[in-house]
Amino acid sequence: MEEPVMKPYVIGLDLGGTNSVFGIVDSRGDIKATTAIKTQVYEKVEDYVEASVEALQAIIEQVGGIGTIKSMGIGAPNGNFYTGTIEFAPNLVWGHDGIVPLASMFSEKLGVPVALTNDANAAALGEMTYGAARGMKNFIEITLGTGVGSGIVINGQLVYGCDGFAGELGHITMVRGEQGRPCGCGRTGCLEAYCSATGVARTAREMLEKTDRPSLLRDLDSEKITSLDVSIAAEKGDQLAKDIYEFTGHMLGEACADFAAFSSPEAFIFFGGMTKAGDLIMKPVKEAFDAHVLKIFKGKAKFLISSLDGSSAAVLGASAVGWDL
Amino acid sequence: MEEPVMKPYVIGLDLGGTNSVFGIVDSRGDIKATTAIKTQVYEKVEDYVEASVEALQAIIEQVGGIGTIKSMGIGAPNGNFYTGTIEFAPNLVWGHDGIVPLASMFSEKLGVPVALTNDANAAALGEMTYGAARGMKNFIEITLGTGVGSGIVINGQLVYGCDGFAGELGHITMVRGEQGRPCGCGRTGCLEAYCSATGVARTAREMLEKTDRPSLLRDLDSEKITSLDVSIAAEKGDQLAKDIYEFTGHMLGEACADFAAFSSPEAFIFFGGMTKAGDLIMKPVKEAFDAHVLKIFKGKAKFLISSLDGSSAAVLGASAVGWDL
Repeated sequence: MEEPVMKPYVIGLDLGGTNSVFGIVDSRGDIKATTAIKTQVYEKVEDYVEASVEALQAIIEQVGGIGTIKSMGIGAPNGNFYTGTIEFAPNLVWGHDGIVPLASMFSEKLGVPVALTNDANAAALGEMTYGAARGMKNFIEITLGTGVGSGIVINGQLVYGCDGFAGELGHITMVRGEQGRPCGCGRTGCLEAYCSATGVARTAREMLEKTDRPSLLRDLDSEKITSLDVSIAAEKGDQLAKDIYEFTGHMLGEACADFAAFSSPEAFIFFGGMTKAGDLIMKPVKEAFDAHVLKIFKGKAKFLISSLDGSSAAVLGASAVGWDL
Repeated sequence: MEEPVMKPYVIGLDLGGTNSVFGIVDSRGDIKATTAIKTQVYEKVEDYVEASVEALQAIIEQVGGIGTIKSMGIGAPNGNFYTGTIEFAPNLVWGHDGIVPLASMFSEKLGVPVALTNDANAAALGEMTYGAARGMKNFIEITLGTGVGSGIVINGQLVYGCDGFAGELGHITMVRGEQGRPCGCGRTGCLEAYCSATGVARTAREMLEKTDRPSLLRDLDSEKITSLDVSIAAEKGDQLAKDIYEFTGHMLGEACADFAAFSSPEAFIFFGGMTKAGDLIMKPVKEAFDAHVLKIFKGKAKFLISSLDGSSAAVLGASAVGWDL
């Protein structure tokens, strides 16, 4: 009888609307080799997969050939873990009007098991495998970028729900009724409409319009203000900019208080561009959580910033999807 | 080597502030024997356990002796599954100001494994084992009684969180800020403050006070109106009473839309006295859910009433806790 051969690597693919970044990753999260192709130059998914596999061959050879590869994980917009498909992804040329069986297409070409999930779930799995959530069985990863995404881990497993799409905490309703801000999802009052980078920019415009308080932000074209502009102004001591983050963090903390009543996580872990604002946002998050959470949960959850932040975080997250296969 | 003996029964204990009801249950949910003692006549938990075991001996003999008993499950207020303890339960004479290791106390006396959890979690486990959720891996059980409780099942497992207390959906905030009704938990605006039996009665009083609309409910002492009075009036065609359930169901449906964004359950299952109002409450729940839920979840979740309703439901739920041991 042959001994089973340990396959030490997984492939991670961070599939974005513009670029597709591949990495070959070991179990400690070290990226051994990396490559990339443009996502948007391929009109047909078959051509996209062929180009991907061609790019992958070179780095697979670098690490010792396909025999060293256990599996492949993909983090992709609108990725469904249960079916291995990408479903109606608005930002993908070859994926916006149908269901693409991307996992099985890669699996056929490469001869290894392939799984995919959405970006926020991949981030949560990456955190659990290599990052701030190592050893945790119950935590919630919240991604703060252009939108607000989430990956929920309960009893050591990612929560996919009955259809593969659970964990859309960006679309919990925070402001009910007519006062709620319109959200990209077509509804109103969602967490994402307030606590995403876009939401912060909108809060800035509203505060500038509704008051005549002085602010460094008044020097900028109000239509072009970004969350980064707000955090730069806040760091310079601008009170209005600080208040914008106070408002944003407060709402996020109130939302976390509700999430605690649901799954009582050991930690909330924040990921993505907006976490660069640091205590500007984290301090009001924690204060609002403590002020609003049910008494039995008070002081139990940690509030952490992802330890995966940086350019390789998304590839690591994607690769983590592969380890369980 | 002896063959392992199949033990066909579990003991279920529905531990309430007034009564403690015991049942011996088989795997199909048939209650083979039952007994009860008063909970509140015992000032010391040791005496309570001794009296319980004495009452149990008689029914254990009826089913063939302790060798037929696999384990015992307890559904109790403030029960913590992880530790087997009851923690600061306000309605228990011997349990209101400390942590009582009830599972281990019963286990020592009976010589079988014992687990406990809170009432709403027991209801969810009962539903999964014998009731409307058989075969489901993802559902949310919502108990509508004096309070609003919940038991959440994800990937076929009950959600206990990091501390054993997850699943407090009655304390999700539905009305933020000063407009929120005071809740028994000391906070304001909780789902429970609106959608419990107590909440329905309060809605009735508010609607009677704030308008001069005619209603059968005006014949009653406004301070003593119950949710049952409201449903009786509604069944007689009283429009104000119907509007009270419309308001209640609408809020519950909006809450379920948020819960779907969290765990995308296959079904919401409602349990407890208020479900007797039937379509009066279920219809607005479904309508509000459809109107408010994120598009990808629309039409996916079933809305069911527990098939365990009735006098034995709580004992069945408690017994279900024992099967996994």
